[in-house]
Amino acid sequence: MIRVGICGYGNLGKGVEKALKITEDMELVGVFTRRDVNIIKSEAKIYPVENLDNMTEDIDVLILCGGSANDLMTQSPKYAEQFNIVDSFDTHAKIPEHFMAVNEAALKNNHVAVISAGWDPGMFSINRVYGEALLPKGETYTFWGKGVSQGHSDAIRRIENVVDAVQYTVPIEEAISKVRSGENPNFTTREKHLRICYVVASEKEDYNEIEKQIVNMPNYFDEYDAQVNFITKKEFEDNHKGMPHGGFVIRSGDTGGNKQKYEFSLELESNPEFTASTLVAYGRSAYRLNKMQEYGAKTVLEIPPYLLSPRPIEELRRTHL
Amino acid sequence: MIRVGICGYGNLGKGVEKALKITEDMELVGVFTRRDVNIIKSEAKIYPVENLDNMTEDIDVLILCGGSANDLMTQSPKYAEQFNIVDSFDTHAKIPEHFMAVNEAALKNNHVAVISAGWDPGMFSINRVYGEALLPKGETYTFWGKGVSQGHSDAIRRIENVVDAVQYTVPIEEAISKVRSGENPNFTTREKHLRICYVVASEKEDYNEIEKQIVNMPNYFDEYDAQVNFITKKEFEDNHKGMPHGGFVIRSGDTGGNKQKYEFSLELESNPEFTASTLVAYGRSAYRLNKMQEYGAKTVLEIPPYLLSPRPIEELRRTHL
Repeated sequence: MIRVGICGYGNLGKGVEKALKITEDMELVGVFTRRDVNIIKSEAKIYPVENLDNMTEDIDVLILCGGSANDLMTQSPKYAEQFNIVDSFDTHAKIPEHFMAVNEAALKNNHVAVISAGWDPGMFSINRVYGEALLPKGETYTFWGKGVSQGHSDAIRRIENVVDAVQYTVPIEEAISKVRSGENPNFTTREKHLRICYVVASEKEDYNEIEKQIVNMPNYFDEYDAQVNFITKKEFEDNHKGMPHGGFVIRSGDTGGNKQKYEFSLELESNPEFTASTLVAYGRSAYRLNKMQEYGAKTVLEIPPYLLSPRPIEELRRTHL
Repeated sequence: MIRVGICGYGNLGKGVEKALKITEDMELVGVFTRRDVNIIKSEAKIYPVENLDNMTEDIDVLILCGGSANDLMTQSPKYAEQFNIVDSFDTHAKIPEHFMAVNEAALKNNHVAVISAGWDPGMFSINRVYGEALLPKGETYTFWGKGVSQGHSDAIRRIENVVDAVQYTVPIEEAISKVRSGENPNFTTREKHLRICYVVASEKEDYNEIEKQIVNMPNYFDEYDAQVNFITKKEFEDNHKGMPHGGFVIRSGDTGGNKQKYEFSLELESNPEFTASTLVAYGRSAYRLNKMQEYGAKTVLEIPPYLLSPRPIEELRRTHL
């Protein structure tokens, strides 16, 4: 059994706990948290995060479930010195810098650190690379949604008199159809995705002002068509507490006059639970890469598919090819 | 430049030649054939296949474009002793045996041999492994088509009084919809695919007998609903000379009560040209694995995605993650 630790117990950490329950070759050692261990409800053993320093012999892979903005830039290099780790670092622009820091730390004590696992970055990245390599003449398109954007939802909640809010990123059907038809169109930001917002406001009088602030918000909404819907607190609780997401990577190519379409898609009822499942599978690969003495930082692009599977490669060649 | 040889010059070999024209880091050394070199029309240099024995220093990767039934079981081990090779061996049941023979041959002189590249086996296999590893609780479904099945078309052409014939494998929409809905249904063979046949017969009087022979043909048609359409030679030439294909791999999973759908699909106007493009990309990986001294036979499951791309990994981490 591969012994796994979870560092951080938000939606992602809870997803990893669930995923491990349906994973035969991996077991949960414990959850490590910065919060008061007594207030956390869980079947798992809960430890203060400081205990990790004394448990390097008890954990084969530590799955880091913190956020990219505040946690992973420091946690991943720190723990890669002590453990094999997996993270879901998703600040695309900072990935090379993060990779270098984590790689250096992992190499110090012969650990493997898989960074930026998940679905984007992650499975979508893999398909962007495969699609382009297989169809060098062509265009790659990524669409996201329908799904909740946590960052945009947070941005709306920071507006005065907003009680709660959720923002769905919705790919525009017409744009997807154009891509699938092989036209290889160019799109503006506005032509690819809609941003649909459901907002609970304290007073009806605030609606106009809130809507104005949303649709004009720079970086978040100004380059998109944003729809703002005001709903009651009850409607919000009843219909908008899920965390669905997904999307498409489409490579539309041409081989000597013939159109060739490569498409990958995910439709997820729970974004954090799917990301968590991905972290668990890449956790398995980290453990196995370590046994193969392939130390250092790795991205999903550098890990062969079979290392994610609990089945031996001889079986996969027989049954899955 | 990676120097490539093509062994065999049917549809697949011609597809490889086309693919190399839009590939910046690879160049065609020549086409090697068992046929009379003088009757082959091509811009490429054409050599008798025997010349390969004297050209081991001129070719970095030899792409084998013969068929699984008669060529590859002998050609792949033979040439893996002399060259890095790629093949598209697709007799699923014999892959482990083929792997062993090719592996032994490749290791003799430090070569890399990528076997069973293409789309099924190939990209579909990769997605079956990823889908199952990411969503261990779930079901995997493969649908093929709409596309031409060469084997079934050949089988119809062997019937007496059949002048020409093509068979399209068509996935049944209702079955795909059920899978996408997350029902995880069980299907009989008949419920997943239709077999639609277009047949040119010598005489109208033969129609009934030919149709009876098709729909009852064991192993090929008896377990399916087969539709037989008789058409004229002209209609056949006008509308049924293309080689489209494609299909879907769908993993329908569940993570703690939430449905998660993973889907990969290809829609190909030219099946042989897409397979050829895949062989070229895996040819690049064979060359690079050789430089990394990772000798022996490999399947697509054992090759990390980045090795297919002409771009350096540092760039891919920056731009494609």
